Amino acid sequence: MNSSAANSLKLGICGLGTVGGGTLALLENNGAEISLRTGLPIEVIAVASRSLQPGSLPHIANTGTDPFAVANDPDVDVVIETIGGFDPAFEVVKQALSNGKHVITANKALIAERGGELISIAATNNVILAFESAVAGGIPIIKALREGLAANKINWLAGIINGTGNFILSEMAAKQRQFVDVLLEAQELGYAEADPTFDVEGIDAAHKLTIMASIAFGIPLQFEKTYIEGISQVSPEDIIYAKELGYTIKHLGIARLLEAGVEIRVHPTLISNKNLLASVNGVSNAILVNGNAVGSTLYSGPGAGAEATASSVVADVIDIARYQTAGMEKPVIPALGYLKHHENVPVLKIENIRSEYYLRIFAKDKVGVMANISSILQRHEISIEAVIQKEAISENVPIVILTHNTLEKQLNGAIAEIEQLDDVSESIARIRLEAFDDEGGS
Amino acid sequence: MNSSAANSLKLGICGLGTVGGGTLALLENNGAEISLRTGLPIEVIAVASRSLQPGSLPHIANTGTDPFAVANDPDVDVVIETIGGFDPAFEVVKQALSNGKHVITANKALIAERGGELISIAATNNVILAFESAVAGGIPIIKALREGLAANKINWLAGIINGTGNFILSEMAAKQRQFVDVLLEAQELGYAEADPTFDVEGIDAAHKLTIMASIAFGIPLQFEKTYIEGISQVSPEDIIYAKELGYTIKHLGIARLLEAGVEIRVHPTLISNKNLLASVNGVSNAILVNGNAVGSTLYSGPGAGAEATASSVVADVIDIARYQTAGMEKPVIPALGYLKHHENVPVLKIENIRSEYYLRIFAKDKVGVMANISSILQRHEISIEAVIQKEAISENVPIVILTHNTLEKQLNGAIAEIEQLDDVSESIARIRLEAFDDEGGS
Repeated sequence: MNSSAANSLKLGICGLGTVGGGTLALLENNGAEISLRTGLPIEVIAVASRSLQPGSLPHIANTGTDPFAVANDPDVDVVIETIGGFDPAFEVVKQALSNGKHVITANKALIAERGGELISIAATNNVILAFESAVAGGIPIIKALREGLAANKINWLAGIINGTGNFILSEMAAKQRQFVDVLLEAQELGYAEADPTFDVEGIDAAHKLTIMASIAFGIPLQFEKTYIEGISQVSPEDIIYAKELGYTIKHLGIARLLEAGVEIRVHPTLISNKNLLASVNGVSNAILVNGNAVGSTLYSGPGAGAEATASSVVADVIDIARYQTAGMEKPVIPALGYLKHHENVPVLKIENIRSEYYLRIFAKDKVGVMANISSILQRHEISIEAVIQKEAISENVPIVILTHNTLEKQLNGAIAEIEQLDDVSESIARIRLEAFDDEGGS
Repeated sequence: MNSSAANSLKLGICGLGTVGGGTLALLENNGAEISLRTGLPIEVIAVASRSLQPGSLPHIANTGTDPFAVANDPDVDVVIETIGGFDPAFEVVKQALSNGKHVITANKALIAERGGELISIAATNNVILAFESAVAGGIPIIKALREGLAANKINWLAGIINGTGNFILSEMAAKQRQFVDVLLEAQELGYAEADPTFDVEGIDAAHKLTIMASIAFGIPLQFEKTYIEGISQVSPEDIIYAKELGYTIKHLGIARLLEAGVEIRVHPTLISNKNLLASVNGVSNAILVNGNAVGSTLYSGPGAGAEATASSVVADVIDIARYQTAGMEKPVIPALGYLKHHENVPVLKIENIRSEYYLRIFAKDKVGVMANISSILQRHEISIEAVIQKEAISENVPIVILTHNTLEKQLNGAIAEIEQLDDVSESIARIRLEAFDDEGGS
């Protein structure tokens, strides 16, 4: 790491899409204010973008379409990767790190799935790999976990970390609309991609949760072990029934450290209406973190958008500028917050988690059905916290059950048996319910 | 600053009350985890406390009752000041900084009122003065403002930053109780001091707001120019009337940057029930920050308590340990976030702010009263957004008015005239109403 006094910090940006373009604009708009904070002028001297017209950025020395020309530019101190995806992003980042340049990336998939390898290359080359913008857009949650809460053992965290999914669930709840209907609107508004799989099936949230879990607990990145369930199966009826019981359904990423290992899971979740997360609507993100000293703290704000994400990219730039100015000889903060990971903490399989559950069963309106269901649950040692029987829909009656804390494996067995009952029709809706030990905020 | 490789970071703690004692305990309980994050063992080698029994901390080398013995201990790298107040805290901090030691303090009054002088002594001696724990307890809001949001020009911030006051207002709202009644309970629960002036009259909140405003806008600390109004005049009726109109009354610290200068003010405030701050109840703190790139982000959590506050003290310790390990030659982050302040930004007098207002007037139930009030408001160019007339209480009718945005000076003139009307009895309740341009979170 070159910490000799330089006149400026020189940036190269790879990819001028939403985030890259936003970053370039933000550095220009807020440059004067930022230099009062860093003491070191920051300038963009190289840009690569697929669609760049020759001569369109006349004040930037090195422009073109090849990101490797940025990664290999000897004058560039920091490479900002805002291309997205793996190819060529992975090789560009690797090349830049190998050349001894710091790298800032907004690429959550890249960090969650191949971050281990890149972080080790960064360490070898004594440079920083920073990714505040990869998780929860403009919310400085990486900094909170790695630094602000660093005095704590983190017990658990839970977050609304996909704006598209939260917009869809919020709309379904506010207007009693169907999933597919709201998804179409979200696509028209530009909140959802043409192929919405990444967002609505929870993959994007799982990438972010993987990164947060690693930092929170000091464990390696383990995207492949993260449990992922999307929101496409949530029905407006379930949202209404949950509300009547005092709960809101949110798509949460949950990570929790237990004696037996860690839970890392993304799925629709019933949470108390009193939990601050329940009031976070629309495309916002919010993360509740519970530490053994501080208790629960909440961080919320815009999880996406050009300017919000650029805010986090440039925060990483400012960190580097300040470290450089202070004469740092090596990275100040380990990329994932720990110098040495806990290597032997297993990630629990979903069958082995314990949770409370919401069950919605359609059954014929006949004497004895409820008794049969109850006896199956009892046989599987699942105790019931609440039952409500709703008005019949055609010949079926919706029965809604909240269970006490139980092992998921046991619940699966009970559900399979209940579904075999003659008087039970369709499959049973099962949604996990989180009763956090500290709801935070109120 | 001594950045030579040391085997450990050596701390001295002055004051073993709630926060100091919590810090000592936290370093012990989480020490192993913390060392995985810093790479540098942290040890407490000196402690001074008024009530320290000789031999009660046998594993600590230098113990006694004199804080200057800690500040002057040549082996101490970092002095933690958790004495509180000005005397001897100011001289202890000054002595430690002059001796070339970093100082961490939880003392909001000290930083807000005499921070300028201490920060300049720290700069002269090339050491760090850190105070994350001085604002909003366990919430890492200083780090968010100085680092996480450093790419933004901050437009405004608004926060619930006194847990005692928020507990009292939450209880008054939930149970329609009187201020004095809830205050007594808060004292019994240990949420309020025997002399509650600092909390309920807004001085504590003003200390915290002064510090946040300085960091947010890059202006000097100006406690003496902060407008302060407490909650002792808020009545349960006003809370109820506000609720009927869709608002919650919170005691907020508000700082806003405008063309004409900055507003820095602490007072009861009506906010929309949809604002996330409205859902923050009990002793929690929460701060909503609006930046020109990121938009609004919210930070909430416990604003007081031994462990929560210690979480922030030790986060400052960890920062210093990491900087030290990375070979820093001088402080990485300016104490108030800016290397050079904007010196010529005036703090606006309260008469010169613009706001919407809630007015509650008790008037005789007679024809023409409302017409008289309306015509006075109109003459002062104040337009009315909503009026509700409540059921008569004895011979008086409460009239509740929400105004559109108006200059406070103009409103004062109108109120003075209305209070002169024969049919208006008692003084008029006036509470500012904030319609934030971005409520955040939803």
